[in-house]
Amino acid sequence: MSIPPAGVITLLTDFGLGDPFVGIMKGVIVSAFPSARIIDLCHGIAPQAVAEAAFWLERSFGWFPAGSVHAAVIDPGVGSTRRILALAAGGHYFLAPDNGLLAPSLLGSPGASVREVDVERHGLRPRHATFHGRDVFAPIAARLASGSLAFTSLGDPVEPRPCVLERPSRDGERMTGSVLTIDRFGNLITNLGEELLRGIRAPHVLIGEHAVRVVRTYADGQPGELIALVNAFDVVEIAIRDGSAEKYLGFGRQTPVHLPLANHPLPA
Amino acid sequence: MSIPPAGVITLLTDFGLGDPFVGIMKGVIVSAFPSARIIDLCHGIAPQAVAEAAFWLERSFGWFPAGSVHAAVIDPGVGSTRRILALAAGGHYFLAPDNGLLAPSLLGSPGASVREVDVERHGLRPRHATFHGRDVFAPIAARLASGSLAFTSLGDPVEPRPCVLERPSRDGERMTGSVLTIDRFGNLITNLGEELLRGIRAPHVLIGEHAVRVVRTYADGQPGELIALVNAFDVVEIAIRDGSAEKYLGFGRQTPVHLPLANHPLPA
Amino acid sequence: MSIPPAGVITLLTDFGLGDPFVGIMKGVIVSAFPSARIIDLCHGIAPQAVAEAAFWLERSFGWFPAGSVHAAVIDPGVGSTRRILALAAGGHYFLAPDNGLLAPSLLGSPGASVREVDVERHGLRPRHATFHGRDVFAPIAARLASGSLAFTSLGDPVEPRPCVLERPSRDGERMTGSVLTIDRFGNLITNLGEELLRGIRAPHVLIGEHAVRVVRTYADGQPGELIALVNAFDVVEIAIRDGSAEKYLGFGRQTPVHLPLANHPLPA
Repeated sequence: MSIPPAGVITLLTDFGLGDPFVGIMKGVIVSAFPSARIIDLCHGIAPQAVAEAAFWLERSFGWFPAGSVHAAVIDPGVGSTRRILALAAGGHYFLAPDNGLLAPSLLGSPGASVREVDVERHGLRPRHATFHGRDVFAPIAARLASGSLAFTSLGDPVEPRPCVLERPSRDGERMTGSVLTIDRFGNLITNLGEELLRGIRAPHVLIGEHAVRVVRTYADGQPGELIALVNAFDVVEIAIRDGSAEKYLGFGRQTPVHLPLANHPLPA
Repeated sequence: MSIPPAGVITLLTDFGLGDPFVGIMKGVIVSAFPSARIIDLCHGIAPQAVAEAAFWLERSFGWFPAGSVHAAVIDPGVGSTRRILALAAGGHYFLAPDNGLLAPSLLGSPGASVREVDVERHGLRPRHATFHGRDVFAPIAARLASGSLAFTSLGDPVEPRPCVLERPSRDGERMTGSVLTIDRFGNLITNLGEELLRGIRAPHVLIGEHAVRVVRTYADGQPGELIALVNAFDVVEIAIRDGSAEKYLGFGRQTPVHLPLANHPLPA
Repeated sequence: MSIPPAGVITLLTDFGLGDPFVGIMKGVIVSAFPSARIIDLCHGIAPQAVAEAAFWLERSFGWFPAGSVHAAVIDPGVGSTRRILALAAGGHYFLAPDNGLLAPSLLGSPGASVREVDVERHGLRPRHATFHGRDVFAPIAARLASGSLAFTSLGDPVEPRPCVLERPSRDGERMTGSVLTIDRFGNLITNLGEELLRGIRAPHVLIGEHAVRVVRTYADGQPGELIALVNAFDVVEIAIRDGSAEKYLGFGRQTPVHLPLANHPLPA
């Protein structure tokens, strides 16, 4: 549990970059910890899309140095009585509202520990009710990352709310998942993990009226062909070679995606 | 007036992040000052929206370490004879075009000092007339932040142009302000300061045909209810719980917002 | 050829900032090279727009310190057999897919050297076929910038594919170029270099039905007037004083732009 802090802080928010909110959080961090290494994980999470943030946090943190502090501020309940959690897991630290943002893979990892950040104890009772990213998350992240505050001093152990990230479910002869997020290229990223494909000879997925074959890489598709592949985050992604599957299909987040489990070929 | 530089440079522009303009400014800065700590305050100011930049700069700089250099490049007059100003105020340094971007609260603070950056003297006469962010602001910010150039050496004291930031005005029994900016959540941020609400028992604001009650935090609204609150920047903001007030109202920047000063309840 | 690395890495991609792709690349870089100085050159290149990236890379790199590593990941062929190139030229290092992204001015500069990055040799055979930015470009950039891997050890010398950047061509009494990119202000940036204007007394350019006079700076235009000027990147740009030429004209990237070479006045 005593992971030495790496001095690295990542920020994941739904603030966008059109306003100075993220910049101000960084000002607070460097005021408290001048040599902090701050990295924007992403600020383009759809407003208040906790599940999307949960997915990206789980799939991203492992690419940062052990001992990093990952502050995730997607916080529709800011100003309410919702708690702020700190998690030590997998050699990393996480700060997040208690709104289901923390993935089961993190919470359930060996030795994982969750504490409620005791805002009063740390002198951080915010005067304002709308910007805890600046008033709570940034100063706590700075102290944790600099080593001036130990994880165990943050507050008492608590049980977090269950994660909002939906998992695929079995539905007769197929698994049913959904589109979790869509990237800038119009690729539809689903919650169907690569492990679901194992043992299926000619896997394909169904989205709307479309049966889409699973290939290895974008280059395996014909120009304009709708394809599916296991992407770099180990989940199935639906794409079009040299185009936007989002535009072509007209589907958005939460669209159901089915994976037939039987070893049969693609329907005609 | 002799604030030791903190080695921190913030950048506030209307360049957006779709082009390499901001990246190139950073290249110039690190070429001159390799250990500069550069923080993006914001690059999403609406193109040439000097008032919006003036608001954010005034409300943001205090969250950075004393001795920071804040370079604000919202500069419709680039290439004309408009001057470039340097300001030392409130323990911070500011660089901005002389176009009304510097707020009265800064210019009028005790000991504040304004100088015109003498571009010729510092060998920075730009070959090009379109990108002074790269050719003037970046090198001056680097020298000031590194301590290689003293504020008093930048140029002669001058009187800046008045700030373009509008202040609310009294209008009979009410104060009239306006929407200054809109954040990514569709919250309308006004220039009505929290001090205007003091002593009013059940404050509300009027925008278009809507009378909107002032609450403490987003969570005090009903889902879908239009609410107003004092935000983390000490001004009134109009929001919708779990929604976008911008989309709901269809109003943009500069929409008038009224604050009745009498102690009467919300109209039915 | 032995340029000492400066510890600076710039990133140029078409990933946008709406997803954590860029953040994850930075995580990989700081994991391998904790004191790396990472600067976002730009992530807003239009998806798969190799020519736009080629233009910006060529026009931007010189503003960074000598010995910088510039990683450009606009890579429609990711996962195919396309090679990854490393280039040492002009005192800088470049990493890019072999898809025509590297400009002739770089490839042809004195002492320039191109090598194929030998992914196998460096233990970087990606498990996934879709995110070489994370799995190849980031670790190679980190090793090159930290000095732990010498340029000459990257792989064998190769001949790159020709650059996709189109050059203006002579067409009777005029040069014909095109719009390469459009900035946030709606300025149309062309591939007509300033050298083409030399010796022309009253230069103007033709776009669609419009004859546009070349002025020195934005401030030389009347409000609302369509103007052309040599911008800070030494190419002709078409603009409107206090407005968006893109919106006014309705033209996009690749629109032809003509420059009459004769010394005659602007047509009426």
